[in-house]
Amino acid sequence: MHQLYLCSAKHDHYRALLEAVPLPELVLTDSLEDATIILGDPPKLAARIEKATQLKWLQSTYAGADALLNAPRRDYILTNVRGIFGPLMSEYVFGELLSLTRHLPHYREMQQSASWSPTPYKGLTGKTMVVLGTGSIGAHVASTARHFGMKTIGVSRSGHTIAEFDKVLKTQDMSSALANADVIVSILPSTQETKGILNKETLSVCQDAILFNVGRGPAVDEQGLLEAIDSGHIQHAVLDVFCQEPLPASHPFWQHPSISVTPHISAESFPEQVFDIFADNYRRWIKGEPLNYVMDFSLGY
Amino acid sequence: MHQLYLCSAKHDHYRALLEAVPLPELVLTDSLEDATIILGDPPKLAARIEKATQLKWLQSTYAGADALLNAPRRDYILTNVRGIFGPLMSEYVFGELLSLTRHLPHYREMQQSASWSPTPYKGLTGKTMVVLGTGSIGAHVASTARHFGMKTIGVSRSGHTIAEFDKVLKTQDMSSALANADVIVSILPSTQETKGILNKETLSVCQDAILFNVGRGPAVDEQGLLEAIDSGHIQHAVLDVFCQEPLPASHPFWQHPSISVTPHISAESFPEQVFDIFADNYRRWIKGEPLNYVMDFSLGY
Repeated sequence: MHQLYLCSAKHDHYRALLEAVPLPELVLTDSLEDATIILGDPPKLAARIEKATQLKWLQSTYAGADALLNAPRRDYILTNVRGIFGPLMSEYVFGELLSLTRHLPHYREMQQSASWSPTPYKGLTGKTMVVLGTGSIGAHVASTARHFGMKTIGVSRSGHTIAEFDKVLKTQDMSSALANADVIVSILPSTQETKGILNKETLSVCQDAILFNVGRGPAVDEQGLLEAIDSGHIQHAVLDVFCQEPLPASHPFWQHPSISVTPHISAESFPEQVFDIFADNYRRWIKGEPLNYVMDFSLGY
Repeated sequence: MHQLYLCSAKHDHYRALLEAVPLPELVLTDSLEDATIILGDPPKLAARIEKATQLKWLQSTYAGADALLNAPRRDYILTNVRGIFGPLMSEYVFGELLSLTRHLPHYREMQQSASWSPTPYKGLTGKTMVVLGTGSIGAHVASTARHFGMKTIGVSRSGHTIAEFDKVLKTQDMSSALANADVIVSILPSTQETKGILNKETLSVCQDAILFNVGRGPAVDEQGLLEAIDSGHIQHAVLDVFCQEPLPASHPFWQHPSISVTPHISAESFPEQVFDIFADNYRRWIKGEPLNYVMDFSLGY
């Protein structure tokens, strides 16, 4: 029998799913020490992972597993969830983007004073979106941008062509992409290479761009972003992730008129979808087949 | 020579476009009486159209030309603009819809008090959008809904199949569509047949639906909508058009917590795009070819 340890803010939901669809040769354990398999949220597990001495495989409930990738322990297989966040991320990015470009907060304010006051706007058609990170999430966001008539440029380590992008540049050529961006979306994971990649200097080529960070907080140098807004390179920043989460109450982002703060909700892990990925991987596991979405500790994603 | 009279809130913009790209055998006139051709905004023209005794053809700058269609005079060719509003309408509908489903006003409010408070949400995937009116705008909005993973049902007079819809029902079968709708979008023109088509009775089959009116105000019976919200059939209404515009300051919609009011901005006529349609039609006109987008006074659209 395989011993599964559940460790998630949605523990009860996962437990109910497991009870509804039992998996062969799998029992739940309340003991981390006995667990051979873990299904869980990386931040909740990172500090305790050393105790799981029998652990062979850990299925992350998140796409971003930097909390575990950055922990010293690496003697187990770590898989994450992919392919389920693209649509939610597109909803977040385009909900926030269209709110800005179509002045929805203005109209909400005007409504309070019964004021009929049309405001000029431009459509998204013909504008350029630059997406940093061209994996499944980035490609999906680009496909939505294209649906809205936008040009799409991707930036990735390899620069490999991806169908959803008009072109993909290598990270070292990021500057030429940012210089032409109306909208920039960072979906970058937190790694040594991405740390502070969007900073005062790299953002200084931008011309009145709207910046999204929906990947991981450390990709944006927070002080550098404030300076890029002050100098007009960045018109508005929509931030769902931060170097420290929850964002401390004293942080200047909260009160900044050109920054929208949301509490890391751009793409939630819905247990039903995560469980489907886990169940599929578990069936591969007991057959000895390679697992889906294995993470690479050395690459950091 | 053909005498063109311009009558638009964007008069100067149209004049500049005409001067930049002169059309053969066409001169501008300041006299409505001398005009053989008019390019203009229907509400501005409706009361004065009788004076244009030489008028042969009027190119509306709007998609909705009910102000002219409802005027007694019918002895000229009336064309409208089509095919340019779909993308803007999708931006409006999905900007407002995602604001609601992803709780963006809540997060804006929370930001003011530096409060990190995630709120549960569901994605659009699998939800059903019912679109009343399956012309080019409705089809475009449906294509956006499909991009976001929604099911799409159209409602039209004919019930003819349209590629962007999973199915299209006839108007008399609207009730079965509304009963299954998560989101309803009315893009209906103002005609005798559409007047008050969304009323207390027809909306009583809805189950917690979000209603958009981006067509013409009279399609929604305003008192009936208020009752449908009170009784929980409609969860929220997003209204860009009204029976009387501007919406009077005393109207109950302004202060209603479940109604979002915007000042008829869902799809603006951008002069460049309208002018392209006019110029194309003018070239057809001087060659004696049939014009694009001729409206039918008896159908009312």
